[in-house]
Order: sequence, then C-alpha cells, then structure tokens
Amino acid sequence: MITGGNRQIRVGLVGGGPGAGIAETHRIAMRLDNRYVIVAGVFSRDPEKSRVAGQQLNIPEDRLYADYVAMAEQEAERKNSKIDAVVIVTQTASHYAIARKFLEAGIHVICDKPLCLKLTEARELKALVEKRDLIFCLTHNYSGYAMVRHAARMVRNGDVGEVKVVQAEHASGWAIQLLEKEGNPQAAWRTDPDTLGDASVLYDLGTHAHQLSRFVTGLEVTQVAAEMNQIVEGRAIKDNANLLLRFSNGARGSLWASMAAAGNEHGLCIRVFGDRGGLAWHHEDPHHLRYCPMEGPPQILAQGAKWLSPDARRWTRAGLGHPEGFFEAFANLYTEVADALLAKAERSGWVKSELGFPEITDGVRGVSFVESAMRSYANGGAWTQVEPT
Amino acid sequence: MITGGNRQIRVGLVGGGPGAGIAETHRIAMRLDNRYVIVAGVFSRDPEKSRVAGQQLNIPEDRLYADYVAMAEQEAERKNSKIDAVVIVTQTASHYAIARKFLEAGIHVICDKPLCLKLTEARELKALVEKRDLIFCLTHNYSGYAMVRHAARMVRNGDVGEVKVVQAEHASGWAIQLLEKEGNPQAAWRTDPDTLGDASVLYDLGTHAHQLSRFVTGLEVTQVAAEMNQIVEGRAIKDNANLLLRFSNGARGSLWASMAAAGNEHGLCIRVFGDRGGLAWHHEDPHHLRYCPMEGPPQILAQGAKWLSPDARRWTRAGLGHPEGFFEAFANLYTEVADALLAKAERSGWVKSELGFPEITDGVRGVSFVESAMRSYANGGAWTQVEPT
Amino acid sequence: MITGGNRQIRVGLVGGGPGAGIAETHRIAMRLDNRYVIVAGVFSRDPEKSRVAGQQLNIPEDRLYADYVAMAEQEAERKNSKIDAVVIVTQTASHYAIARKFLEAGIHVICDKPLCLKLTEARELKALVEKRDLIFCLTHNYSGYAMVRHAARMVRNGDVGEVKVVQAEHASGWAIQLLEKEGNPQAAWRTDPDTLGDASVLYDLGTHAHQLSRFVTGLEVTQVAAEMNQIVEGRAIKDNANLLLRFSNGARGSLWASMAAAGNEHGLCIRVFGDRGGLAWHHEDPHHLRYCPMEGPPQILAQGAKWLSPDARRWTRAGLGHPEGFFEAFANLYTEVADALLAKAERSGWVKSELGFPEITDGVRGVSFVESAMRSYANGGAWTQVEPT
Amino acid sequence: MITGGNRQIRVGLVGGGPGAGIAETHRIAMRLDNRYVIVAGVFSRDPEKSRVAGQQLNIPEDRLYADYVAMAEQEAERKNSKIDAVVIVTQTASHYAIARKFLEAGIHVICDKPLCLKLTEARELKALVEKRDLIFCLTHNYSGYAMVRHAARMVRNGDVGEVKVVQAEHASGWAIQLLEKEGNPQAAWRTDPDTLGDASVLYDLGTHAHQLSRFVTGLEVTQVAAEMNQIVEGRAIKDNANLLLRFSNGARGSLWASMAAAGNEHGLCIRVFGDRGGLAWHHEDPHHLRYCPMEGPPQILAQGAKWLSPDARRWTRAGLGHPEGFFEAFANLYTEVADALLAKAERSGWVKSELGFPEITDGVRGVSFVESAMRSYANGGAWTQVEPT
Repeated sequence: MITGGNRQIRVGLVGGGPGAGIAETHRIAMRLDNRYVIVAGVFSRDPEKSRVAGQQLNIPEDRLYADYVAMAEQEAERKNSKIDAVVIVTQTASHYAIARKFLEAGIHVICDKPLCLKLTEARELKALVEKRDLIFCLTHNYSGYAMVRHAARMVRNGDVGEVKVVQAEHASGWAIQLLEKEGNPQAAWRTDPDTLGDASVLYDLGTHAHQLSRFVTGLEVTQVAAEMNQIVEGRAIKDNANLLLRFSNGARGSLWASMAAAGNEHGLCIRVFGDRGGLAWHHEDPHHLRYCPMEGPPQILAQGAKWLSPDARRWTRAGLGHPEGFFEAFANLYTEVADALLAKAERSGWVKSELGFPEITDGVRGVSFVESAMRSYANGGAWTQVEPT
Repeated sequence: MITGGNRQIRVGLVGGGPGAGIAETHRIAMRLDNRYVIVAGVFSRDPEKSRVAGQQLNIPEDRLYADYVAMAEQEAERKNSKIDAVVIVTQTASHYAIARKFLEAGIHVICDKPLCLKLTEARELKALVEKRDLIFCLTHNYSGYAMVRHAARMVRNGDVGEVKVVQAEHASGWAIQLLEKEGNPQAAWRTDPDTLGDASVLYDLGTHAHQLSRFVTGLEVTQVAAEMNQIVEGRAIKDNANLLLRFSNGARGSLWASMAAAGNEHGLCIRVFGDRGGLAWHHEDPHHLRYCPMEGPPQILAQGAKWLSPDARRWTRAGLGHPEGFFEAFANLYTEVADALLAKAERSGWVKSELGFPEITDGVRGVSFVESAMRSYANGGAWTQVEPT
Repeated sequence: MITGGNRQIRVGLVGGGPGAGIAETHRIAMRLDNRYVIVAGVFSRDPEKSRVAGQQLNIPEDRLYADYVAMAEQEAERKNSKIDAVVIVTQTASHYAIARKFLEAGIHVICDKPLCLKLTEARELKALVEKRDLIFCLTHNYSGYAMVRHAARMVRNGDVGEVKVVQAEHASGWAIQLLEKEGNPQAAWRTDPDTLGDASVLYDLGTHAHQLSRFVTGLEVTQVAAEMNQIVEGRAIKDNANLLLRFSNGARGSLWASMAAAGNEHGLCIRVFGDRGGLAWHHEDPHHLRYCPMEGPPQILAQGAKWLSPDARRWTRAGLGHPEGFFEAFANLYTEVADALLAKAERSGWVKSELGFPEITDGVRGVSFVESAMRSYANGGAWTQVEPT
Repeated sequence: MITGGNRQIRVGLVGGGPGAGIAETHRIAMRLDNRYVIVAGVFSRDPEKSRVAGQQLNIPEDRLYADYVAMAEQEAERKNSKIDAVVIVTQTASHYAIARKFLEAGIHVICDKPLCLKLTEARELKALVEKRDLIFCLTHNYSGYAMVRHAARMVRNGDVGEVKVVQAEHASGWAIQLLEKEGNPQAAWRTDPDTLGDASVLYDLGTHAHQLSRFVTGLEVTQVAAEMNQIVEGRAIKDNANLLLRFSNGARGSLWASMAAAGNEHGLCIRVFGDRGGLAWHHEDPHHLRYCPMEGPPQILAQGAKWLSPDARRWTRAGLGHPEGFFEAFANLYTEVADALLAKAERSGWVKSELGFPEITDGVRGVSFVESAMRSYANGGAWTQVEPT
C-alpha cells in the first residue's frame, strides 16, 4: 500500500502553538497516513506565538489568521483551496464558541475531546451539525485502536451473548504529585476550580471510559450514581471518581476515573461480561484483546492476526507482531475522517460507518454523562438519569 | 524445619462428609504442617454417610457422634484427649447454631466463612466468644497468602502513604452456566432464594473481597451503596453486585462481587491506592505483589524474596520460585490457629497477632457489611451505614 | 473426596534431619493426600541429630536406625508393618550406595533427583530395579504439575503436530551471590569442585529441564553440544551452561541451565514448537499453559478448567481459580507412587502409567545426559551422543 | 514541540513500488516527525509500476528515474535541491550494487537491513563510506525503541554489572504455513534456495537479534556455533537456527532465529544477565523493560516514566501510558539520521552518537555473523570465529 495517492485534505488549526499539549499528536496523526495538509491556522491567542508556529508549519502569511472568527469567515469565502475542515485543539472551555463559528460558516470540524462543558451548548452544536449536514469528528482516539474495533465487532456479533456487566476505568497516575503547584500548565488548567472544577476528572478521563464503554458495547449509559473524593491533599478539586452505571439494555457496571491513581501508567481499560463470554482490553497492552468464550479457554487475540475482523484488519498497517500504538490509533480516526471528507467533497454519499470515528452525538452523550454524574454526586450519590442527546 | 514437633491439635469436625465441598480443603490445610489430628466428628446429617466418612478418617466409634449437640456436650465432658477445637464446615445457614453450641460448651471454634446470616446472631456469637475467652477463627483463607500479608504490612508501614482508593473484586466465572439446574449441589444451595437469596453473591464472594480490603488496609468499610443484577437468565437470584464503598479514614472505593463473570477464573483481586504509592494483588497470580512507589518504577515482589517482611517470610515454606497456592494459604491460617490454641492450652498468654488469622470480629463485620449492602440495594442504592460490631 | 481412606503407605527416610534442604518438602508432599506414614528412618549421619529428628517425627526407637545398611537389612527382615518403601533425601553423592542397598534388600525406592553421579552406577541401579521388579520413583517433581501433564497429553494427542523445536530453561537466580562463602550449606556442597564440580549446574538444574523436555514431548535427547561459563567471580565451579540439543525425532532445541541468572526466581520453563502449533509453560505461573494452535488464536489453559484432559484434572484438588503450587505437584508424584505401591502390595498388577511419575529409566537418562554434555564441553562443544539407558 | 521546523531532508527512493513490503514503513517513519520529503526515485524495475508509484508520491517526472544508475548519476549532478540521501528498500540481493553506486556518487545512504549477502561486499561498502565520509544508516529499527535505548544505557551505566549471559531470540511464527506455495511473494523470495538459501532465517531474523545483542550490551559476538533444521515440510530451505554465542568480554549466550515458531507473534526478545543484575525486553510489549537488580525486587520500567535516561526520554513523543510502537521506533532512526544529515550539510561537525542509529559497521558485523554461523553449521557446529569488520 502506498498511502497518499488521494487528494490531501486541507485543514486549518485553531490552537496548537508552542507548548500546547495534544496538538502535536493531532499533527502526527494527520501525517501518518499522508492524508492531510495544514494550510491555515490561528495557533495561539498570543499573535507572536501564533506567527512562530505558523512559520514552523509553513503556513502562508495570508492564511495565518488573527483569530478564529477571522479564520472561519475568510476561509468560508475563499474560492480556491479553502480548508476542508478545521481542527480544534484548544482548551475545552473554548471548544463550543470555536466549533459553533466554523459550523455556522459551513466548515467541517475535527475537535479534541471533550466536546464542551454544557449540555445545552453541546446540543446546540449537534443541531448545527445536523442542520448544515456537516461532518464533526470528536477525537476520542482510543476507539481508533484496531483491537478496540475488534472488541466492538465481537460484541455486535454476539460473541459474548447479551452484555450484562461493564467495568470501565480510566485511572491515570499522572497527577499523583501536586503538579499544578510546580508550574505544570496542563495540571494548572485541569485542576482549576473555576474552569472544569470537580468535573475535571470526569471530563478529561471519565469521558474516555464512558465513550469506550459505549463504543465497545453499542449500549448507552442511561443512569449513573457517583461518588468523588480527593487523593492529593492541597489540590483545589476532587481528583477521583467512582461511579456505578446502568445501561440501556439493563446491564450494570462501574466506572472509575482518577488522575492520581499512584503507579498507574494511563489506566484505561474496559472489561465486558455477557451471558456467553467476556472481553478485556487494557491500554497498557493495546495490541491484545482477551476473549473468554463461555465454552472454551480464554483466547489472546493480537493485532494483525489473520483471524481478526475486517474492522481490525483495516486499521493494522504492519501486521502481526509489529505493535501499533497511541499515534496509530489517533491516525486511524483521522484517516477515516479523510475518507468521509473526501466523499462529502465529491458528493459521493458518505455514510457513517457503524464502527467509525466518534461524532457530535458521542460528544453530546459525553457532556450529558458528566453533568448527570455531577448531579448525582451533588445529590448524595442518587441514581440519576443521563439525558439523551 | 521439621514440622510436627509440637503436640498436635485435636479437632472434631462438624460437616465434611462425602460430597461436601470445602471440607477436604480444611483437612489438607490441617495436614500440611502436621499440626492437627482429627479425632471426632459428625460428618453428615445422614448417619450412614457420617459413619462412612468417620471410618475413612479413622475416627474411633465412640467419637463419631449422632449430632453436633451430642458432640459438643460429650466432648466438653471428656477427661482425656478431648478436642482442642471444633471445625465447622457445614453450609452457612447452620453455622450459628453449631458455633453457639460449641462456644457454650467452652470449645474453641474454627469455622468456614461467612460467619452466619444475621447480624444479631453474629453479635451473639461474638459476645459468647468474649465472655468465654475462646479462640474463634473464621477461615477467610485469602488473608493467609504470604503476599497478602506483605501487602498488609506495607500499608501499615506507610509504603503507600494514606490510603485513598480501594478497588476490590471477587468476580468469579464459576456459575456462568445455570449449574443449579444441572444437578450441581453447590450451585443449588448457593442460588436457593430461600437460603441466602439475593445476598448469596455477597455472602459467598463479597465477604472475601470485603475482608481482603479490611485486612490489607487496616481500615473499616463504614458506608456502602449497592446495585445488583442478574447475569444468567433463569437463575432464582441476583448473581452480580456492584458496590461503592466509604472507608473509616475517608478513602473511597468500589467492590464487585459476581458468580457469573464469564471467563474469570476466580476473580479475586485488590488494588490499594494511597497518596504515596499503590499496591495490587491478584489471586490468579498469588505469588506476586505489584508495588508502585510514587517516586520510582513499579516493583514486582515475589513470595520467598529475601527483602520481604517477616509477615510474608514466615508463611513461605519453600522459598523464591517455589509457588505456594490455595492450600498453603489455608494452611497458614490453620497453623497460626494451632499456635494460638497451644498457647491457650498452656495458658502461656496468647496474644492476637496484628496480621493474624481472621476472628469473630471479622465475621461480624462481614455479616454487617452484607446486611448493609442489601439494605442499600433495597433502598435504591442509597449510601447506608455499615453497623459496627 | 475424602483422601486417606486407603491403607497408608509405610515409609522409612534416609536423610532429612535438622537443616536438611528438600526433606521437609518430601514430608509435606506425603502428608498432603494423607497416603503415607513415616515409620522408620536414619535422619543424619550424626546419631544425635538423627535421634532428635526421629523424636520430632514420632519414630519408635526400634526403627530409628544407626545407618542405612542396618535399616535396609532389619526392615527387610521385619514380619509386621515393614516399610513399603524407602525415601532417600540425602545429598546426591550418596544416592547410589543407599539406593543399591535397599534395592538389594527388595525394598521399593523413592529417591530425590538426580539419581546419582555416574552412568555406570545408574545403569547398575536400573538393572537391580528390573531384576527385582521393584518400584523406583525419582522425584522430578515438576512433571507432577497438572498443566505439565496436560502439555504432555496435548503433544501426544498431536495438538502441536510433529515436534520440531524445544526450548528449555532452568536458569535460577538463587546463587547470584557467592553464598558458598557466606555459610550457606546448600551452596557449599553444590559448588564444591570435589563433589559435583562443573557438572553441578547440570545435575541440579539441567536435569530438571532435560526431564521436562522428555516428559512433555515424549522424545529423547540423542545428542548434545555444550558450552559453560562462570557468572559469579570467585566461585570454584562453572555456574552457567548453554546447550544445543538434538532429539530422537530430528527436532532441535536448546537448554539453558544456570544457578546465577540475576533476577530469575526459579527460571524453569519449556516451550515446544511443532509444525502445527506450540506450547509454553513457565514455572513462575504454573497454573497456566499457553497453547498456540496453528489455525487460531493463542489459548490460555488454566488448571481446573473443565476442558482439560483427565491427566490434568486428576491432579487438581480444588478446581479452577484455586492455584496449586510446588507442594501439590510434589504430592502428585507421591500419591501416584502410593497407588503403585498399593497395587504392588496387593499384587493387583500395577502398570506404569504413560504420563506417570519419573522412574529409574528417567534417572539413567538424566545422568547420561549430564555425562554427555560434560564430554561435549571438554571436547570444545562438539556434538556428542547421549548414550541410551 | 512542533516537529518540522527544520529544513526537510530530501530523499530519493530505490524500490518501494506497488506490492513492496517494507517501503511503506520507511515512508511512514519519514513522515512521522515531518523531517523528510521524497523528491525522486525509481520504485520498481517495471517502468510502469515505477511511474504509478511516482505519481502517487507526487514525484516530479524529471526525477522519476529509469534505473538506480541514472538516478545516482543525475542526482549527483543536480545543482538545486538534490537529494540529501537515498533510501534503499529493495530486496537484499540488490543492496550491494545500489548502495555502492550511490556511495560512489557521494550520496548518503539509508538502507534496509541486512546490508548485503557477502562479507567482501560489505567491507567494500564500508571502505567506500569511510573514504567518502558519508552517512550510512542501516535500519535495524528495533534499536530505535525507547526502552531498548534505555536498556543499552543501563548496561553501560553498570546497572547489571559485567555482562555474563545474553539470550536473544527472533523466532517469528509468520511462516509456519508453506506460504511460498500460496502465492505470497515475501515468502517466495525469503525461502528461495537460490537467493538467500539456508542463510535466509539468519539474514532476515538472526541479524536483528544479533544487532540487538550488540546494541544493548556494547559487546561483539566473537564466536558462534550453529545448528539448523527445518520446521515446515516441503520448504526448500532450513527455517530454524539455534546458535551458541561467545562475546568479546567472555560472556556466553544463545540466539534462536526462526521463521516458523508456531504461535509466536514476532518473537523478538533479549535478556541480559550480568553479575549484578539482569534486563529483559520483549518486542511483544515494547513499552516496558524488566530490570532485576541483584539487591532488590524486579522493576518494570515503562516508556515515558520520568526516571528514564535521556536516551529513552528523547525518543518518547507522548509520555507515560501512551504506547509507541513499531513505526515510532523506525521513525526514531529516521529522525536521528535527519539530524546527522543536516549537521553534515551544514558542516557543523556531526559526531556519531554512542547510542544512535545503526551504521555501516553494524551492517558488516551482521553479514560477518551470518557467514560465520553458516560456516559453523557446515562444519558440524564447530565454534567459528566471527571475523571483525
């Protein structure tokens, strides 16, 4: 396979200047399969920083914008080689306003997760996406892993029977120290009581576990009961959350989100138990999936094995024994989006894939989930309805 | 070391005839360190079965009793070589009456877990134990593992700092089939709605995870919020429980008990996260303990390693690389009890070890925990106080 | 199951007094299934030590012998309750003389491994065993593990096709320190240049890996090429050996034996690769066996799983998820020998099981293997024939 | 970090047209850090295939060459934007001629491994590289993994003491079927008796294990004893090799190379045992390194952990818990080469890094190693000198 034979997708970036966290990951993901070219952007609210980044990325001067409003408006007006999509990699609090602006300008959006911080705003974005018939990819990157795709396919194939219990975790150890007092900017805004507040651990990590649960099982979380506490003394917010879940088919489960689980590398995992089998996937060994059929020994499924489903084989570049990791999973989403954007551009009737990239609806679900969990916690842990999209 | 140099402890058994489940495990555990001799018993309510078992175990005819009442009374009266303790290995529902009888007769008790099925009865037994100054060992055998002992010591040493989150599971896959309809007697009584009912999964498996949490952390579970559901259709009871926990020091956590987690071998594990480190132990690999200090790489501690605490070294017979398993862990409790009984017999002032065998108090805690969880579940999952002993 | 219903096997011990290494393991193994009673012995060459041990083990004074010659002769003469077998747990160098004496006296033998230190002597013992039609068990205990039994059965069932490559290791880390200079008696005799010499690492550890290879594959090692070196400076012998192997069916492989592989717990493992599948078993996780069929995903087989062969199920006491370890594997051999001895005693026509306890022939093979390897090493690593028994 | 701020390295490709195996991996590796642009090439000996590939890669027509000779000559003559280096991704048999041509033309070379098929030719290339003072990178990609770099640093830091035993394996299961008879072109040329012959498994896989041993330990393999056999019946060559090794410091070890180890994913691993500790790295879990210090418990070192050496941290893009895999390891080499090429171009005095990308010398060592092993095998497995470079 030679990747790059198609027309490249032109994107503009909002965010991603010097020091930005996740932006370089997005850029690596774009480059991996050679499907994207960055042609425009506003990389920082600080004009000088934005200019420096623009130069490093070889952005022509006339497409290095003063702010996202100018970018949205002027790109929408361009006759030639206008951007196919905007990539939003700013802090969460600004996602809503930026995404809205580009959607209003009729521009497709690729947005870092979580979608935004209010369900009302999330729904507004969803309405816009639908009204304008635009593509909106929310980069819940873990659903891009080949073995996560395979897990999702197995559940849909009935390989575990009816799903009965889901155990999901995203309990990272990254903030076991009081990093926010040591000049770590990531830690600073993620633990700022005035930005994300106690919900931070759920927005940042909980939504990944929530999305993984939904993606793998095809079920919705309909009710949640939440408990929170603080691991690291001196932190301005709660940094740990233990939740119980009820799913749309009656399954039960729990979800643990933490930013200070000492010794955990990243701590993302999902285990699904049905009435005929079980599945387990751990991000610390993303190339494998453990499958336990009811009537035989546990099996270790490996990325690249020839007996995997097309959903997994499609996203395996190098084959068995050649581990693909975080960036490849991220790239899988980007490449899927490139296909979708191209199909849209060519009016060839793109249809959302059953096991494809996360979309606006997934984003709304995530925000709704966090809001419900916070209401439950405020209400003494009472079972609380998760509002649908 | 030559084990067996001390006077052997004389015990009588109640239960453990042909087809009984856990009784042979108790007998193997007794034999392992050669500290016990079975000299009396009533092995079944069916006299013929009891007689057969007695013969196989070389019990003299005059000490093969018709029922436990006779056994308690007559053994209490014996002048010579009376039993040092009774071992109760009947089904849970009968523990209370049998234990009470022997305690009233002034006989020490070793009792399979859980203690009994009502907090009031558990407390009554506790009062009796204290009043008569007797030894009561409840065989929560998993706390006998060398690496569990070491984990408990590390927490007490402050190696994880202050405990903040505890994640405990005993999610076995043993009953993913509807075994109770296939003539499996174990499954039959454990899923009988009129015996243990929905609480079965908590009494049978949840109490192990609860006890492990308490033993390793030295904390008490003070509040619980519970949710239950059914995995296997056609079962007369709930077979799955997801709980949230609050601990005496403010730590939080969750506990998952299941009898039908497809593909799990036994599914017992505990992870403890403090503000300075973490610990993880899984019963599927009981010879190892993962320790994650905050300021260095995770360590794999192995049974028999020379850097382990005396608590772990004491219960390691063969040394590094020679795995000890389920029976050895069980035997560790029995041998500890033998020491205690001998000290009692010699009036040499036995003092309960800090990290020793589970006792009556642990049994009361377990029953109280289950009762509270069931109340929480009945009450829509509301946080519910776990009554102290 | 109630173990112990049969007549107990009466044994006498040679060796196993205070401070002896492996003897207590033999005694635990005997007790585990309650099939043995120790009724006689000479426990040390030091009469006082022997007496102390005898008392601790409740040996009647008249059966506490001055030396093994007296024991063999007097036990052979006994009319009543004479020993069914002798258990030899002395240092290797004395095995030959002791075993010969008891065999000559017509007494069955259970002997710790390796058999002895010369092929000529090994063959002499074999001839005696055959001539007198006696049972001789050599306690290569690792072949007692349930999952090793299952592996052996799978190979014989053709589950890996024709065996093509065997990779065996017994590379322990126990002597990475110069223990022999720190007063460790085990280390002292095992590194004594005048006792086992450079062959020590092969006799002590290599024979286990060799036996495991033979037991699992059913093949013989026919040629060996050997290389040795020294890991720990100041040691009087080589402590590391790397060997290449040729098997009777044309398969190839390697065998690594070491007493100073830093960080290895015990380091015993075997991997078998055939033309239709592969198997891997590691003693650090003895309850599992990895099976890789050519045409499907790797499977994790666990002790106690219901889909195991009778060979494995037979030696599983407590079932899935209840790990059995070193002592249980040892006990499996003892219990098998008990069955054999009983059948012999009852003249009921005991027939060696295909996958049963190691016998005299296995011991001869082991000694022959070590002698050949040492010749190869002396001869610059040339391929050297392993003489048959 | 924004990658791509430097001038991009211009490369031409030889090989890598439709259906080529490893070429797309090279291209992904180039793109990952945005340091390369492909500006010229001859992608196939079939002109039409080459043209198609050129178009897909946006190569200008005038730089799509008829053959590598034309490419080398014309690129050498270019005044503007001539290639900085050629990337050779053809089958091994053609490496020598192509590399020589470009080196003679004064063009730096990045070449897939193994270097070539004759030691004389390898030495010739080395002489050319040195005479012309050119950069030559041989893409032994596994030495690009962050945790392999860390392992190499630890050995040099003395963390395992003096290296005493090295156990290396590259035993893949990819060719357990007779793929060469099923139309698999990769399998066809790799098992062609007239191309690589019996040495194929050593050239293809053995050289990776050999290079990994050298890279991690900093030692040379000075002598080898080799044994080969065939796993898959009907194959025209041997597909399995078991080797014993002697290292320059007196260490010993073994190396196993196989293309048909049933069930192995890729089977690359290395274990290093010194007199003060040990290290183990397995490519199936490349993000971790197990370190066993002599005086403490084994440690699990993870990519991205803050306590790793700069050698590992430098090649970690996303941090702890974000696994990087095969492509990132490959990219690490490319990015290192880009730095070297840039320094060369700017005459800023590039100095080979101690733990940097593999170079011509490593290639010569690899070829010499295979030739020696084949001589040993032909000579009945005799210890055979590995000729120095």
